Amino acid sequence: MPDLILLRHGQSQWNLENRFTGWVDVDLSDKGRSEAMEAGKLIRKHGLEPDLCFTSLLKRAIRTLHIALDELDRLWLPVEKSWRLNERHYGGLQGLNKKEMTDKVGAEQVHIWRRSYDVPPPALEDTDPGLPINDPRYRTIDPALLPHSESLKDTVERFLPYWHDTLAPALKAGNTVLVAAHGNSLRALVKYLDKISDDDIPNLEIPTGTPLLYRLDDDLNPIEHYYLSDRPAP
Amino acid sequence: MPDLILLRHGQSQWNLENRFTGWVDVDLSDKGRSEAMEAGKLIRKHGLEPDLCFTSLLKRAIRTLHIALDELDRLWLPVEKSWRLNERHYGGLQGLNKKEMTDKVGAEQVHIWRRSYDVPPPALEDTDPGLPINDPRYRTIDPALLPHSESLKDTVERFLPYWHDTLAPALKAGNTVLVAAHGNSLRALVKYLDKISDDDIPNLEIPTGTPLLYRLDDDLNPIEHYYLSDRPAP
Repeated sequence: MPDLILLRHGQSQWNLENRFTGWVDVDLSDKGRSEAMEAGKLIRKHGLEPDLCFTSLLKRAIRTLHIALDELDRLWLPVEKSWRLNERHYGGLQGLNKKEMTDKVGAEQVHIWRRSYDVPPPALEDTDPGLPINDPRYRTIDPALLPHSESLKDTVERFLPYWHDTLAPALKAGNTVLVAAHGNSLRALVKYLDKISDDDIPNLEIPTGTPLLYRLDDDLNPIEHYYLSDRPAP
Repeated sequence: MPDLILLRHGQSQWNLENRFTGWVDVDLSDKGRSEAMEAGKLIRKHGLEPDLCFTSLLKRAIRTLHIALDELDRLWLPVEKSWRLNERHYGGLQGLNKKEMTDKVGAEQVHIWRRSYDVPPPALEDTDPGLPINDPRYRTIDPALLPHSESLKDTVERFLPYWHDTLAPALKAGNTVLVAAHGNSLRALVKYLDKISDDDIPNLEIPTGTPLLYRLDDDLNPIEHYYLSDRPAP
């Protein structure tokens, strides 16, 4: 039975400051680093031994993975990084304090951008230096694929090819897979695995730094899933 | 012109204690971590922008790479880890203090094991838990390839396929390549690039934590090479 461990990155500096982050490459806070360490300890405590790791191109997820692997004494594991595991791209909202944004456009509009399934925030301009097409880390990716802003639906759609082409084959080959990623790329994964509706998925909250274990059958249907904790497994 | 940056890991805990390390997975010392950070700063200062990174399955090299990439703000780079970049396997000498070994078998024998090209140290027993065939990190590798002990010649021979199959194609594709590895796997690389004789190569010392830049022509012949330093490039 393949095991899939999902790990949302620990608290970032901008989580702390309540800013829309998206693809801005903000680092972990001290608390985030501690959360990542705890996550590694929990994975070890539950006797899980990841074989392959996958993460995004953003340092808060990469560092979370490195810290957890260090705790597991498995820094030697293969790690593949992909933009398809990045956080949802929040377009013109990136960098803004959520309160300032609320004062400016109203709580309802912010709620729509954050909680609707298919409404993207305003797009970044082509000349914005924060745009992925202007960032060397995405230079090997077809610019037509790179977002200027994403709805959760857009995030799901760019994530799914990675599931089918990379994660699913790794699991079918019998590997225990660890994915260190973001609130919305992990929502995309959980939506697919648990067949969660478009209406319900924006309300699913995955806590930071808490490993979420999916036990799958040979066709990769979930048998059970639970968050790892210091309490015995359910 | 492809650029190749070689980086020997920073000082390890056992370098400090003067022990034969080989494939034992010893961590960096505090000094080693500082060296890795300095290495990252030097790479940035010289305007080098690595595209692809390669390292061993041993944490002193992996951590050196992670620390240097963090300094470069390029944690997002692809990193491939391979046993073929591991340190020379020192067999039955691993873990022994060099002075104790000298007292036991004599300085001449120790010198032969360290400085001859083709004399391997005593092999580890098949049941030794420190043997690569008993370590899960090497489980995907054909056990027939995994050493019980290596001469420098053996290290060169298991390194070269990695040059031909992986590093050379990456360089020919125009990438700036960063290899974070070990004294002897880097000796193997330098021996091949600079056509150093079997007699001379054991005497080549590559310092820890100091990036060594090779500028290559399109056929991957070295045009020049030098250590990066705070002084202007030669």
